[in-house]
Amino acid sequence: MSHESKVFVETWGASPTNTGRVFAAVFAHSDDLAIFAGGTAMKLISEGYKGYFIKTTNDEMDSYDLSFAETIYRIAKETQDVTDYLKLEKLYSLDYKNHYLEHSQLTEIRHRLITLFRFLKVDTVITFDPWGHYEENPDHYITAHAVEAASWTAGRQLDLPELKDMGLMPKFVTRKYLVARGPQLVNRVVDITPVIDRKLECIKLHVTPVDNMYRTYKDLHPEAKITEDEFIKGEFLQKADPAYGVDYVEKFHYIDENDSFSFMRNQENR
Amino acid sequence: MSHESKVFVETWGASPTNTGRVFAAVFAHSDDLAIFAGGTAMKLISEGYKGYFIKTTNDEMDSYDLSFAETIYRIAKETQDVTDYLKLEKLYSLDYKNHYLEHSQLTEIRHRLITLFRFLKVDTVITFDPWGHYEENPDHYITAHAVEAASWTAGRQLDLPELKDMGLMPKFVTRKYLVARGPQLVNRVVDITPVIDRKLECIKLHVTPVDNMYRTYKDLHPEAKITEDEFIKGEFLQKADPAYGVDYVEKFHYIDENDSFSFMRNQENR
Amino acid sequence: MSHESKVFVETWGASPTNTGRVFAAVFAHSDDLAIFAGGTAMKLISEGYKGYFIKTTNDEMDSYDLSFAETIYRIAKETQDVTDYLKLEKLYSLDYKNHYLEHSQLTEIRHRLITLFRFLKVDTVITFDPWGHYEENPDHYITAHAVEAASWTAGRQLDLPELKDMGLMPKFVTRKYLVARGPQLVNRVVDITPVIDRKLECIKLHVTPVDNMYRTYKDLHPEAKITEDEFIKGEFLQKADPAYGVDYVEKFHYIDENDSFSFMRNQENR
Amino acid sequence: MSHESKVFVETWGASPTNTGRVFAAVFAHSDDLAIFAGGTAMKLISEGYKGYFIKTTNDEMDSYDLSFAETIYRIAKETQDVTDYLKLEKLYSLDYKNHYLEHSQLTEIRHRLITLFRFLKVDTVITFDPWGHYEENPDHYITAHAVEAASWTAGRQLDLPELKDMGLMPKFVTRKYLVARGPQLVNRVVDITPVIDRKLECIKLHVTPVDNMYRTYKDLHPEAKITEDEFIKGEFLQKADPAYGVDYVEKFHYIDENDSFSFMRNQENR
Amino acid sequence: MSHESKVFVETWGASPTNTGRVFAAVFAHSDDLAIFAGGTAMKLISEGYKGYFIKTTNDEMDSYDLSFAETIYRIAKETQDVTDYLKLEKLYSLDYKNHYLEHSQLTEIRHRLITLFRFLKVDTVITFDPWGHYEENPDHYITAHAVEAASWTAGRQLDLPELKDMGLMPKFVTRKYLVARGPQLVNRVVDITPVIDRKLECIKLHVTPVDNMYRTYKDLHPEAKITEDEFIKGEFLQKADPAYGVDYVEKFHYIDENDSFSFMRNQENR
Amino acid sequence: MSHESKVFVETWGASPTNTGRVFAAVFAHSDDLAIFAGGTAMKLISEGYKGYFIKTTNDEMDSYDLSFAETIYRIAKETQDVTDYLKLEKLYSLDYKNHYLEHSQLTEIRHRLITLFRFLKVDTVITFDPWGHYEENPDHYITAHAVEAASWTAGRQLDLPELKDMGLMPKFVTRKYLVARGPQLVNRVVDITPVIDRKLECIKLHVTPVDNMYRTYKDLHPEAKITEDEFIKGEFLQKADPAYGVDYVEKFHYIDENDSFSFMRNQENR
Repeated sequence: MSHESKVFVETWGASPTNTGRVFAAVFAHSDDLAIFAGGTAMKLISEGYKGYFIKTTNDEMDSYDLSFAETIYRIAKETQDVTDYLKLEKLYSLDYKNHYLEHSQLTEIRHRLITLFRFLKVDTVITFDPWGHYEENPDHYITAHAVEAASWTAGRQLDLPELKDMGLMPKFVTRKYLVARGPQLVNRVVDITPVIDRKLECIKLHVTPVDNMYRTYKDLHPEAKITEDEFIKGEFLQKADPAYGVDYVEKFHYIDENDSFSFMRNQENR
Repeated sequence: MSHESKVFVETWGASPTNTGRVFAAVFAHSDDLAIFAGGTAMKLISEGYKGYFIKTTNDEMDSYDLSFAETIYRIAKETQDVTDYLKLEKLYSLDYKNHYLEHSQLTEIRHRLITLFRFLKVDTVITFDPWGHYEENPDHYITAHAVEAASWTAGRQLDLPELKDMGLMPKFVTRKYLVARGPQLVNRVVDITPVIDRKLECIKLHVTPVDNMYRTYKDLHPEAKITEDEFIKGEFLQKADPAYGVDYVEKFHYIDENDSFSFMRNQENR
Repeated sequence: MSHESKVFVETWGASPTNTGRVFAAVFAHSDDLAIFAGGTAMKLISEGYKGYFIKTTNDEMDSYDLSFAETIYRIAKETQDVTDYLKLEKLYSLDYKNHYLEHSQLTEIRHRLITLFRFLKVDTVITFDPWGHYEENPDHYITAHAVEAASWTAGRQLDLPELKDMGLMPKFVTRKYLVARGPQLVNRVVDITPVIDRKLECIKLHVTPVDNMYRTYKDLHPEAKITEDEFIKGEFLQKADPAYGVDYVEKFHYIDENDSFSFMRNQENR
Repeated sequence: MSHESKVFVETWGASPTNTGRVFAAVFAHSDDLAIFAGGTAMKLISEGYKGYFIKTTNDEMDSYDLSFAETIYRIAKETQDVTDYLKLEKLYSLDYKNHYLEHSQLTEIRHRLITLFRFLKVDTVITFDPWGHYEENPDHYITAHAVEAASWTAGRQLDLPELKDMGLMPKFVTRKYLVARGPQLVNRVVDITPVIDRKLECIKLHVTPVDNMYRTYKDLHPEAKITEDEFIKGEFLQKADPAYGVDYVEKFHYIDENDSFSFMRNQENR
Repeated sequence: MSHESKVFVETWGASPTNTGRVFAAVFAHSDDLAIFAGGTAMKLISEGYKGYFIKTTNDEMDSYDLSFAETIYRIAKETQDVTDYLKLEKLYSLDYKNHYLEHSQLTEIRHRLITLFRFLKVDTVITFDPWGHYEENPDHYITAHAVEAASWTAGRQLDLPELKDMGLMPKFVTRKYLVARGPQLVNRVVDITPVIDRKLECIKLHVTPVDNMYRTYKDLHPEAKITEDEFIKGEFLQKADPAYGVDYVEKFHYIDENDSFSFMRNQENR
Repeated sequence: MSHESKVFVETWGASPTNTGRVFAAVFAHSDDLAIFAGGTAMKLISEGYKGYFIKTTNDEMDSYDLSFAETIYRIAKETQDVTDYLKLEKLYSLDYKNHYLEHSQLTEIRHRLITLFRFLKVDTVITFDPWGHYEENPDHYITAHAVEAASWTAGRQLDLPELKDMGLMPKFVTRKYLVARGPQLVNRVVDITPVIDRKLECIKLHVTPVDNMYRTYKDLHPEAKITEDEFIKGEFLQKADPAYGVDYVEKFHYIDENDSFSFMRNQENR
């Protein structure tokens, strides 16, 4: 479960150019992308990728003391700010009710993602690991499973076949960067040392959710003397395991269906 | 998956007092609490905790040869007996149909749990591990996921905001003792040696389910010469791994969200 | 997750005779049985088992360039061919829409399986591992969870009690061979060396899905010079880990509920 | 909606014999059959019908001040008493959670009904009118729609085709007596004058639900001076519209699919 | 369906005082209350009722050319304005995703309504007619069915029994004013002539939805020369049928469960 | 319910030309279009409409004695034949499992319809009446409700807003021809006398379903001496009510949202 023996360290400059490739970062909430994979998004963009941000919920719950409407209004703006900061092409927000994603919506959300993936010619996704353990938020694991299923059905000719008439042709997503906040089968880390300061700046654009997390932390630890900056760094910018040979990383379970066809992957992962 | 390298052994007397704390043991069936965590419940009560038993199903299926009505009638009484025996404050039975819990009920059950957790001022839950593998009973994993989601949404100001008008204020559940009957990421065991006899007595109060298990076992092993007492001890009271340094334990994946805020827990659990 | 330290190797001739036993291979798609467990099915049949094939979807999506109707028509025939080739008693196809299995169908599918298991007197299932990680196809994990729940509820007297009036008496499924194509807790491998050629022949009967996989592989690897035969062997007939002491295996998480009653299995699997 | 211009009055003695026919009275609750169609059931039995009672919920909510378990226990017995009183062959109770029937269960309940209808060779159902307006109880309208769909799919060769192997052959339900407690398209009334006293006795066997209704009525009308007997007669045994030419009736929307094939029925019902 | 032969005209001054009574207007959207029952709400308040507004969706879709966030933000304010204008005690917005209410949510929404109805001591609801035909918006009919079921289960002792511990005691909703925009079984109209100008003012507070409707109307009728005021009056303030004897009415299917107990209502409504 | 007092008779030649308009006939099954509205489709095409056929199920159950695969294969061809015969532009078959449409799929199917309606620039639908009573087939009423909701949400700018980027612009469906086989609020009949022979020919192209209906009819009426032609004419080609002044009609509840905006339609329909 926690084996990291065969972890690949993805470093800057070593990658082949990624010009012509397209990723979609698909997350449930405004701040998930910056926190979990903000550095990776910057690295991929720097290598030639075009990137899109697809957000599945409306973030209405993520404030410390605001109303639904005020929360949504502020976070909508902050999400656009982060989209711009990360130099992504566009933000698509599906705006499902925050905290309420359910298994019964998996097919419907998958269909919206297939449509977008085909239209945007997405070949890479950055999203939650649907198999990460002790994930407590249904928004995370439902989003993850919808992306997981959309990634390969987007490439099949008989899934949503009517889209072909609209010029939206089948295309497989072949690379998946999967993040988790609990135990996960990590097999790749991305060096984010060169952009660690920009990641910090990016997280701080999420004023409303960060305020919620910080003040909640203080409520649970009334004795703590910690500034918001210290809180962010302590939670989200911890130093990497020295074994990786770089200072800061983002960690993933990575699947490349181009290298190895999807059947019988357990031979490799043993 | 089976790593127990960093297992914490929770022993008697060593814990700080827990006066003022409140746990809810949330299980699907009458006998789950006694079997999986009866000793732990006794220990927490002895340390000052107040405890509640929330049972999600009506146990109607759990008899060897009785009708639905007779089964429900008997188990309702046995469950109250165990609630009293364990010195819990009260039993709440949600009484959903046994064996029929479904993913589509997760939000609804979560809401009932949020309401109860806020009302009872629950800060600790004892429940199934939603990520325990090879769990065959949907009642177990659906209950587990509902508790998992209720534990943190109970503390959020915009989940079921109308409850504030009723004096039911947001409050986080911060400690989770998660049990499993299949492979699980165990990181804490609770010494139950001092109450092992009382645990046995407690399990035996579950006359109807124990009778079902024992007679089913005999059907599957017609050659077995085993008394009901031997059966119970063999199934539920096995000696602990000597490495723990105590005779009997109950095993958990334990999460303390007070120590470590919920983001980025994989740093710790690596 | 990938521990195989206590893997049992099931070899030919060493097994006690299995006369009188009945297995159901329950899979989502036409080709799952041959690919994942074709050799095991042959071995069990050779030991005296009777076998049935229960297929949950209609396979309508699994062709490279055919229509729904043409795909269904061809695969229906190919599935019957494989059923005959494997000397199974009968094929039951539930024919749910391919790629669309959902959590909301778990109870309904479970009921159809309970009915079939009782009627056919199934005591063993071969199916997907419901806890195999990085499984991307909902058809696989929904089928797996339905079988998992049906296996023990088939033996309970109060699940679908009306079936007793029809002579369909409660009976537990006690052996489960669970396959996965991603990481899985493998604890048993079945030697298929004696039937490796017949497994190849069997897979090749799945003309339509194999054609789809092969041509898709070539689309994703336009430079690859690989024949369909080489493709099949490379994907599905890889040599086993030498540690097993045999040339070819199929890998399983195996659960025998007859040996060890279902409670507290984590003692064993630690 | 309330047109009764073409109402057929089904009188005693005038009917052809119904020997060899089988009805299932399918209702949500213990007392629905006696109250809505108890007289009709007696009449059909007197004409040679065999009858079955299929109850979909567990009635756990229907008491004035008892617990769930006590309520279920008592009503189970009362329901059996009424089944005997009406000379029905057998009671099947599906025991779904009372007040919780949901649209998502329609297919699953339909399948259990198809299985029972084929086994019991049901050709006639007495149930709620799925199109009766202002019906407030989801248990009623969900049961009604499940019966409506089961009635014709029970006769189709490709619905649950595996049942044929078990000797459960396709057979259509061709007569439907549909009752409602709100506005309904009434086209048939059954004369129950000859059994009006027995209907009263039968309703009184439902001690627990009648007690609940009577005491609730008194709570809502504290000034009312009414005995339980007066209450029952006032609610459930009102005199019929004189136009019918008989003293007491039970009212139905009746569909005979044998007379008129199911397509284009609106020609007739205009 | 369109019979209005026994329509009761509820006029001003003729009603008994309604001091001590409490209504909840439960609608899907911000503007539904003012448009369908604004005059009735004013009349009930004038007679002593206390009133609450419970809105089930977040109205995010109801603008002509704004974003989700902007739409929600504006309509949240407008809804509060109307709540104040109508002199209601408080607005509760459940904020489910606009246009997405589904049958699978009926139980969960019912539970939130039961909790609110018990807390606010609601005895009267104003809501959509769940049986109004040709209603195209699922938000309307799902809200209607949730209210319909909550109204009587709120009074039952075993629905959500845990609420009793929180002082939220069972209480029936006994009066229902049900509105529809399609064909409906109208049996009561409320004279709103005295407040027709205030109803107009009130509708105009819904700036965002009215703007959407008006501009959509103009798109569909490019030739139309109509001001926004004319549009509002034409759509929402039409003169009543002269048979009613008053100038303006709001039309309802009205159910008073206090007059007539809920069983066998079809005797009355025939 | 059965009022036809204000029925409009749509005759040939009297209609304004409909050049530039587009209809989608959305039905559950292959033969629904020809049987319920084949004549109307021909008339609209003759007036300049372009037409499409959208079929929601795969028709797998609709044969007398064939397998699923054989049934699907034959009906796929027959449906294409009818599409051609009616001179429709194209057939889209969504191919959901026959007899299994469920309420939980309403949103997902609605989304596929919105996408198609916008792409094809549909302004008119011919489909089932979602409010037709005594409709027994869930495929019919679920399809009907999905079309009902898609028709207006297709025109809203914030439903599936991502489609705008793909050039699929919001557009309202403004005319709805709604058919039913049970009681319905008929307000329009279309004269099909000029094409009554072609309707017969068209129905006969549905060889497989007609064979199923005819042979089922004969099973239920073993004494009947009726040819297949007589059966078809008797069931589907009955003479119209003389009041209409034409020989043959197809009957509809018709809604024109262009004439009358969707609010407050009950004023008109009273």
